[in-house]
Amino acid sequence: HSIPSGTNVFDWTVPKEWKINEGYIENEDGNKVIDIKNNNLHVVGYSMPIDEYVTLEELKKHIYTQNNQPDVIPYVTSYYKNNFGFCMSENQKNKLKPGKYHMYIDSELYDGELNYGEVYVPGASKKEIFISTYICHPSMANDNCSGPALATFLVKYVNSLKYRKYSYRFIFVPETIGSITYLSINNNLEHLKKHVVAGFNLTCVGDNNNYSIVRSKYGNTLADKVLINVLNYYTNNNFLDYSFLNRGSDERQYNAPNIDLPVVCFCRSKFHEFPEYHTSADNMEYISEDGFNGSYEVMVKVINTLEKNEYYKVNVLCEPQLGKRGLYPNISHKGIYNDIKSLTDFIAYADGKNDLIDISNIIKKDVQELLAIVDLLKKNNLIYSENNE
Amino acid sequence: HSIPSGTNVFDWTVPKEWKINEGYIENEDGNKVIDIKNNNLHVVGYSMPIDEYVTLEELKKHIYTQNNQPDVIPYVTSYYKNNFGFCMSENQKNKLKPGKYHMYIDSELYDGELNYGEVYVPGASKKEIFISTYICHPSMANDNCSGPALATFLVKYVNSLKYRKYSYRFIFVPETIGSITYLSINNNLEHLKKHVVAGFNLTCVGDNNNYSIVRSKYGNTLADKVLINVLNYYTNNNFLDYSFLNRGSDERQYNAPNIDLPVVCFCRSKFHEFPEYHTSADNMEYISEDGFNGSYEVMVKVINTLEKNEYYKVNVLCEPQLGKRGLYPNISHKGIYNDIKSLTDFIAYADGKNDLIDISNIIKKDVQELLAIVDLLKKNNLIYSENNE
Amino acid sequence: HSIPSGTNVFDWTVPKEWKINEGYIENEDGNKVIDIKNNNLHVVGYSMPIDEYVTLEELKKHIYTQNNQPDVIPYVTSYYKNNFGFCMSENQKNKLKPGKYHMYIDSELYDGELNYGEVYVPGASKKEIFISTYICHPSMANDNCSGPALATFLVKYVNSLKYRKYSYRFIFVPETIGSITYLSINNNLEHLKKHVVAGFNLTCVGDNNNYSIVRSKYGNTLADKVLINVLNYYTNNNFLDYSFLNRGSDERQYNAPNIDLPVVCFCRSKFHEFPEYHTSADNMEYISEDGFNGSYEVMVKVINTLEKNEYYKVNVLCEPQLGKRGLYPNISHKGIYNDIKSLTDFIAYADGKNDLIDISNIIKKDVQELLAIVDLLKKNNLIYSENNE
Repeated sequence: HSIPSGTNVFDWTVPKEWKINEGYIENEDGNKVIDIKNNNLHVVGYSMPIDEYVTLEELKKHIYTQNNQPDVIPYVTSYYKNNFGFCMSENQKNKLKPGKYHMYIDSELYDGELNYGEVYVPGASKKEIFISTYICHPSMANDNCSGPALATFLVKYVNSLKYRKYSYRFIFVPETIGSITYLSINNNLEHLKKHVVAGFNLTCVGDNNNYSIVRSKYGNTLADKVLINVLNYYTNNNFLDYSFLNRGSDERQYNAPNIDLPVVCFCRSKFHEFPEYHTSADNMEYISEDGFNGSYEVMVKVINTLEKNEYYKVNVLCEPQLGKRGLYPNISHKGIYNDIKSLTDFIAYADGKNDLIDISNIIKKDVQELLAIVDLLKKNNLIYSENNE
Repeated sequence: HSIPSGTNVFDWTVPKEWKINEGYIENEDGNKVIDIKNNNLHVVGYSMPIDEYVTLEELKKHIYTQNNQPDVIPYVTSYYKNNFGFCMSENQKNKLKPGKYHMYIDSELYDGELNYGEVYVPGASKKEIFISTYICHPSMANDNCSGPALATFLVKYVNSLKYRKYSYRFIFVPETIGSITYLSINNNLEHLKKHVVAGFNLTCVGDNNNYSIVRSKYGNTLADKVLINVLNYYTNNNFLDYSFLNRGSDERQYNAPNIDLPVVCFCRSKFHEFPEYHTSADNMEYISEDGFNGSYEVMVKVINTLEKNEYYKVNVLCEPQLGKRGLYPNISHKGIYNDIKSLTDFIAYADGKNDLIDISNIIKKDVQELLAIVDLLKKNNLIYSENNE
Repeated sequence: HSIPSGTNVFDWTVPKEWKINEGYIENEDGNKVIDIKNNNLHVVGYSMPIDEYVTLEELKKHIYTQNNQPDVIPYVTSYYKNNFGFCMSENQKNKLKPGKYHMYIDSELYDGELNYGEVYVPGASKKEIFISTYICHPSMANDNCSGPALATFLVKYVNSLKYRKYSYRFIFVPETIGSITYLSINNNLEHLKKHVVAGFNLTCVGDNNNYSIVRSKYGNTLADKVLINVLNYYTNNNFLDYSFLNRGSDERQYNAPNIDLPVVCFCRSKFHEFPEYHTSADNMEYISEDGFNGSYEVMVKVINTLEKNEYYKVNVLCEPQLGKRGLYPNISHKGIYNDIKSLTDFIAYADGKNDLIDISNIIKKDVQELLAIVDLLKKNNLIYSENNE
């Protein structure tokens, strides 16, 4: 989808499109000390064109570095105001010798388009699982490419399901302005408020460090519940549980006042929290196949759990007789109850008041284990679910 | 009451009645190595008849022991499937010499009856306190006889009360099948759901170890509240508070989905938790007069508390003037408030929003002490209760 | 206001007025061993007249001391019963020599008046902030004079406000009988129940020790919320948070059953908790300008917070664009979010569900800092408040 520059989107306006052809600094020997041909980050994002010869002193006013990480080039942008600048490592800046420098940026700001992608995979119900990711940080591996990559594989996964209870909506938008634009057009907000049962913003999902959740505004939606449950068992309770006060990506828009969608943010190392963040070190070496696979497995478990998450209810009075169905040991002696404890505990709380995740939380058993029990009990015609749609 | 074999009771069927006349193993010298005349436990409960001569190797396939407790005979049953077996101590089994053995069980499985007892003691209200205990484990002292014994003494106690606010119902049933049968006949379930305000399953109440509660399914009924409060003060907060995940006796049925009665389980050492459990060591030496008396005292306090548990409300505006009624020291000096603190704290929270147990929990005073304050304030016409029946 | 002796006030009666002209003990040498001319506390409050010559042994029956604090004269009263007595230090009592003593009290108990003061400062709304303090303990500096002094300065403060959202009512009453009398006359109770949104009983606010709150009966009123929040930030969470079980002043009446006003008690060292309490050591040396000023500052912050405490709501969809209003840094680089975190966090929770204090508690920022943010956002027309009056 393409939305023209100048379109009003809630409190914002779709900005002009920016295109950069060339960008470098040349010293008086005619050597380019930096050039965007080597690294996209060398020019401040959204810089105006410039073509000036300056002293080193003057040049330095337009150079951005990350001085506590002297080896990396920082990622810097300057949206919504006329400006320009260059980025390099602190070490490189310190090596610049006095002399004349040529600052050259050949860029254009013009009435163009904001582009975003959307995939809708229909299921039995119009109720939706909503997955959002962003596509705007140049050259960033974890804090950008990993999100759309994971979303793409999840599109494949839900497409591969023979039966989908839920419909799935994936959007690929520029961060902030893209999600705001998406929410403001085509009655999207009204539609999402009506249909979304749980949403996930995917970002920084390619590294192999801690798993993290950033909770929704009040931390109590179905999205929070399912992701917390899955991470708890998948990581043996070894993950980072951030409150909404630590938000930073598009969960900000989805949870904003008057929007109030049930959306959390899923990441490995959270944005702002890893040193490589927003620098040239957030590259293909920082992310890994293992890291990405772990994120994929978590989100697949989240989807599988949501697909089976219903309010199950036993359809007999008192405990069912498991023995006559071959579900109970025939010889009763000390200790036998442990073998079938998940089964009997599930039955005890399948009273229509708890969904599958609630039962997992109450009886302290992995919801993945309970999925098999649900199938067993359904096959034996002992439970039913009241689909509360 | 007697319910015929074959009667359908919810998901179950009342089984055939089992009768055993003789049961032993004889070695080739004609000596009986075990005989139920010495101990009921030597034959697996509900064994089919058998009359066979076998080698030691074959015999061992039918012998059950508790190999981590080599001195005791385990208690083993095999309900709801044709089977037979013998129980002995691990030590005894190890001493068996090679040779021929005669396995002999003269038992009958026939269309008979499931028997249970019921006592109803009417009070001013039709609202009931429900007390259940079981009568099915042969030769077990704590994990059986103690329960019916305590229930019997509680029948005597409530009969001795001059005034009973509540009616009391006691049932003596075989565990599991008995409580299921009881709930399934005579509209009992409908009656109980309408009238029971708190229920208690009594088991393992004869030893002199820790007091224990197994909470109801969600742990928040009046039965939980009163027993927790009484145990807290009676034991100086030194008791075991088990969640419903540790259930094991008939509280399973009373809290099952669609039954949902407010029933907890009261014990000293909880079933499954003491080594003597379900072995020949659960005998008259394991239980004691002191242990049994403690359980009796707890349940009497529970009953007394429930009888006085109402939503009291002060009938004056602001604090009442205690001095003119002789309830307040005449000379006011530092420290006097401690003497009447329970009294003034009770009054402060007697606002109609808290029952007697709530007030005890809020002001951190033993409900037994508050019973005297209730009487004093009633005599002085300062409180009334809104009977919320 | 003056209420005649004998007036029925709820469960109480306004007592006779007491006046004392002279009060001393004279020894047989004609020397006065104590005399109220030296210290008001030497005669038990509300003593009947006496003019008798007695032995030392007899005299001692009428002498009150604080024997664990041998240097101080205790403050003792005997209301509501005919009685008399003298107070002195334990040391002084021990020095009394055998001999004859003249006990002399020239006092009167007569039909007089109970006097109290009331100040009402109207605001834009009829909703009231209620402030109560007492005026009855003779010669007590902290546990009496400090309360009316602070209330007086708060009257000046609210009078100085150009705009008052709330009206303010201050009452100066004798403790217990005074607040009961106030509540029982002129439809005061009905009026207060309708209009008071938060109330504060001021006592012991002149010393320079810990700040303290005694919570309302259930600890959850707006008065609790605002005072806890202010004390938390003002003292860096170093204050004493007493439950209602530790009450002792007129918060007793305001929270009594059937009264149920949202009133907490504010003090520095709480009554009953400091050794000088109710003795001659609670004097001008125990209190200090610093102590009093701190109490004043806390209550001014409480008032300022309540005046601005509304349910703010952002009036745009999604996050507002702060940049175009000059509220956002133009260059985006790592770490910039910290600079505007209070602002963006406030906006995130300004969804109409939280009042200003709730937001402060959620985002963990001092409400005093948020007051400036409220002004900034109002000026930029980004928030409004739904006055829930």
